[in-house]
Formats: sequence, structure tokens, C-alpha cells
Amino acid sequence: MAEFDLIERYFTFEYDFTQASNGSANNKSSQKNKKPKVVKGIGDDCAIFEIPEKYQLVTSTDTLVDGVHFFSDLEPELIAHKALAANVSDLAAMGAKPLAFTLSISLPEVNQDWLKSFSEGLKNASKLFKVPLVGGDTTQGPLNINITAYGSVKKGRLLERNNAEVGDDIWVTGYLGEAAAALELYDKALVQKAALNHSEAELWKALTQPIPPLKFARKLTKLSRCGLDISDGLTADLGHILSKSQCGAKVCVESLPVSEALVNFVGLEQARQYALNGGDDYQLCFTASSKHRNKILNLAERCQINVTRIGKVQDEGLQLNLNGQPFESNRVSWQHFNQ
Amino acid sequence: MAEFDLIERYFTFEYDFTQASNGSANNKSSQKNKKPKVVKGIGDDCAIFEIPEKYQLVTSTDTLVDGVHFFSDLEPELIAHKALAANVSDLAAMGAKPLAFTLSISLPEVNQDWLKSFSEGLKNASKLFKVPLVGGDTTQGPLNINITAYGSVKKGRLLERNNAEVGDDIWVTGYLGEAAAALELYDKALVQKAALNHSEAELWKALTQPIPPLKFARKLTKLSRCGLDISDGLTADLGHILSKSQCGAKVCVESLPVSEALVNFVGLEQARQYALNGGDDYQLCFTASSKHRNKILNLAERCQINVTRIGKVQDEGLQLNLNGQPFESNRVSWQHFNQ
Repeated sequence: MAEFDLIERYFTFEYDFTQASNGSANNKSSQKNKKPKVVKGIGDDCAIFEIPEKYQLVTSTDTLVDGVHFFSDLEPELIAHKALAANVSDLAAMGAKPLAFTLSISLPEVNQDWLKSFSEGLKNASKLFKVPLVGGDTTQGPLNINITAYGSVKKGRLLERNNAEVGDDIWVTGYLGEAAAALELYDKALVQKAALNHSEAELWKALTQPIPPLKFARKLTKLSRCGLDISDGLTADLGHILSKSQCGAKVCVESLPVSEALVNFVGLEQARQYALNGGDDYQLCFTASSKHRNKILNLAERCQINVTRIGKVQDEGLQLNLNGQPFESNRVSWQHFNQ
Repeated sequence: MAEFDLIERYFTFEYDFTQASNGSANNKSSQKNKKPKVVKGIGDDCAIFEIPEKYQLVTSTDTLVDGVHFFSDLEPELIAHKALAANVSDLAAMGAKPLAFTLSISLPEVNQDWLKSFSEGLKNASKLFKVPLVGGDTTQGPLNINITAYGSVKKGRLLERNNAEVGDDIWVTGYLGEAAAALELYDKALVQKAALNHSEAELWKALTQPIPPLKFARKLTKLSRCGLDISDGLTADLGHILSKSQCGAKVCVESLPVSEALVNFVGLEQARQYALNGGDDYQLCFTASSKHRNKILNLAERCQINVTRIGKVQDEGLQLNLNGQPFESNRVSWQHFNQ
């Protein structure tokens, strides 16, 4: 099957781009309502965007490789979901609203069943995250999935890594550590194909079908200037905020949001280690002034997500405390190329 | 070596983004001079762009895989050059000016010599094409190089595939077929590592160091509305224009620009076949009204590139003539996944 047929059959989803358009009139009221939009999707050499004056275009790219970011024996529709989730999570990390994405995929062969399932998963994730596929390419080679995601944010409203201020609260969304713990289920789920119990199934879902808090992140830009997504583990990612903002933090380990499913599976102590050091969470870590506490809690409620205050920004160091006593974190975070 | 160190050491080039900035004053004259710009490069979750009102952002993504788009035994700096060239060629195909690019690279291992050479080649190509690296990621996996390129074009000035009109001239830039012919040199150049003669060296350079006609493409948008880059072979790529524009074409095979080097290497007849069907040319094919002939020739001269009128847009079909007689093209163009 030729590349063009393959794109046409599996990667051309139906979207109505015109609905995002606001006409071309140039008067003040239409200027005011102008939104960033995709003006050309799949079918030419490039995808085209228009970004009105008061917005910035935000873009992020991530590659997923077999054995590193996913297991190739996982259902292809779950691989597709995760690839897109990981990328829109980077947009959430900046407080941006997803606008579109492109897919570059290398495939060892044209396997129709695989492609059908992958395409289905991608289409569903694309609808779930409200982000259209607007281009990309397919090549023959070892399985490699690259997605570039595009989003927009109003000027002055970015969540950045270097804006933490001493005295700020430190918050995280969702529950941490589930995805890392779920790696222990690989054999059971994919080799033995045994039934998972309720807790296990929940962890497996966190690993294979993460849902970044997109809406919350976008609205959060009114209350915070500093955040990122937790993809390499809380301590590593919080470390990026601290080094870029040239400050330190105290984290209360007893406050870390660990789910009942995780505690059932590995016990409270190991759950905390996973929450501190596990990767693949695709939740947000952000800082905000303590005067915004109630607004943040209300926003989370409106967005139907969990949000937890886990510590404070301080002058220097990264201090982990459990009920006031120093706590030792027992492993390094995920890094590619650690040898 | 951790991912962050690797990016810092090999993929952080020095650019002065501020020079592209035009301040934030909001009066009319500053509005008029506003240019698209990169406001944030490497170091956060995303890269950020500002695209003034009268511009559109154009983006394209391409993956290069070992054995398909390059030979891994080629010098890494040439692999880097080609990866970036293939992507900025897609911008040229739309008439866009390069603004930035991101790199996602999967590497089987951290080989410092390989990375040093690749990084050097990427930096040089980045300077040559005047396009800064603003983000990306590195992962462990089979060698896979994905680049997403970003460019800008004034509204209403895009080169698109669907704008050919019956009676238009058909033009191509540069010389065709050299890269495809150069594949015959693989053994000599990379296995035997024998010296190439003058013609062979020229072909090898066309394959490994293509230079898309970026400046010409950008200026061409005043004279043409329809074009693309020839990466899959002239007949295949011209075919895209014809099907999207719902028209046909007559191509005069004797007019095809074949270089002396190519004719020396394979003879005139095979040179024409390569020119029609060879891939990897990264030249432009475009259509324009015959009233613009002189302007197009003058523009090409100013941009120091070759440009050739090879035929005319007609109602239907793709007719290949050699001195008025039907000409038979002897092979299909390059397609991924042809099995």
C-alpha cells in the first residue's frame, strides 16, 4: 500500500475546521473574538495556522519508542491514546489550549489490523482531547511514533518553569505513582493475559490511558505563572522548576496524593516512593500564591479533577519531610540513556 | 548520559532570538514592522511563537529512517543536513520563510563521535537555512530522526497544490534526477570508499547535501499560487498538483533540466528517466501564468538558481512528449510501503 493511500485510509479523520473560523472582517468586534485556528490540515506539504495578535502559538514534540514508552504488545489503540496524551500533556504544562497535532509514524510493515486499531485509538483520543490531526507522514522502519502538538495561549498567560517564588504553595493534580507501579503488571496483563483485579485495572488504566488535566491547566493560567507536567517523576520535574526558578522547596510526603488502588497494590510506603519518583504520570505540578488556595480548589472541582497542596517553595534545597521528619527517597527518577 | 545533558551538550546552539523581536509598542508603525518570531526556544516543555495578524504559521513534519532516507554509514553531519533540508523543502513548497525547527531523535546508544558530527552538521545546516533549533527530545531506540519545521507566510501568498490553471506554464527549479542516480554510487562511495570522479561527486553531493531554493520560493509567491517540492519524483509530485487542481499537463521531456554530471554518468536517455521518476530532488515544481515568464527568469537569476519551463497545464491527462512524440516513462516513482 502506498503512503498516500495509507494516510487516506487510516489518518484522515473528519473535522469541521470552518467552525473555528471567525470570518475575515476587520472591524473591532471581530478582532476581539478572533481565535487561533487551523486553516489547512492534511493534504498539502504543510499544515497552516492563524494566530491572532493576542495569542501565542505553543508547540511540543515527543517520540514514543517501543520498550521505552510503550509495549508493542499493547493494543495499538492504547498506544495511540498514550502518544497523543503525552503530547497534549506538554501543552497543558504551559497552560495552552490544544489546537492541532501532526503524526509521524514509522512502521515495520503495513499490518491492516494494527493500523485499524491504532487509527481508532488515535481518533478517539483526538475527540477526547478536542484536538484534530492536521498532517504528518508515514515511513517504513522500526516502530516509532512521533507527535507534534500545537496549542495556543493568551500572551502573558503561560505557565513557565522559572516563575516559582519563595513562599508559593506547591500543588499537584490527580494521583501520582500509579503508572510507575503498573509496570509491575506487565507480565500479568500482557504475557499471561490474566484478569486484573479492580485496583490493578485502575493502575493499568493510569499507565495506558492517561488523561492530562487540559481544561484545568488552561484555566489555571489566571491563578498561576509556574508549572510543568510530571512525566519524569515528581522530584525530577519539581527539580526543573526549582533550578529554573533558582529556589528550593519543602515537600510534605504525607500529603502526596496516592490512590487507594496504589496503596492496595504496593502498600503505603512504596506508594509514596512511586509518587515521588515514578514517571509517566502526565499530571501537573504548579506553584501559586497562598491567596489563591480557595480559587484553585474551586477550579479543580469545576473541572472534576483532584488537586493537592504538597508543599511550599523555599530559598534552597529540596527537603522531603514525612510528618516533620526527613524522608529518604529511594531511587532515581526515570532518565533516558542512563547507562 | 542523561537526556538533559545530551540536549545541553549537543543540541543547544547559540541564537539571538531577540534580534527578531520588535518590542511590544502597539502603535501603527510598529504593527506594520512586526515579524513572526520565536519567543521561547529550548528549555521548557514547549517552544513558543508569535505570528502577527497578516501572517500564517506553516508547519511540516518529516521522519528520516535508516536505509529508507539515508544510509547510517554516511557521515552523521550529512545525515543531519539532509534531515533539515528535507523539512525546510516542505516550507519552500508552500512559499514560506523558515522560522524554527524542532528535532526528535531516537538513538540506539550514546555515541559521542556520532553525536558530535551530527550536531555539527545540524548546526551548519541550521545556519545555512537561517532556521534555529528551538526544541525537541531524545529517546533511546532504533535510529530515527524526526524534524518539524515552522515557517511563516503572508496571508494570501501560499503556494498550494490546488491552484494550477489550464494554460499556465509548468516550471521546475534546479536539476532533476541527480539524487536518484547517485544511489548507484552507494557501493563505491560507502563500501569501497573509492574516490569519486568529478561528475560522480556532484551527484553524490546532490543526494547527500540538497539545498532547497528557499529564497526563490519565498519571492515566487508574488508570481505563482501553485507549487510543491519534488521529493517523490517529478511525475508523482506533478500528479498531486494535477489531481488537486483537477486538470492535466503536457511535459516536454527534452526540456527537463538534466545536468552534465548526470548525463555523463548514465547517458541522456536514462538521465531523463531519472529526472521524471527519481526521488529526493528537493527542488520546486510550480505553475505560473505565461505573462510572468521574464519575471520568473529574473528572480531565478537574482537568487542564483536554475529554473526551467518544462510544459503547460492542460485540461486533463499527463502527457509526456519528446520532441513532439509520446514518451514512455519506464518506472514508477518512489513510494513507501510498495510491496
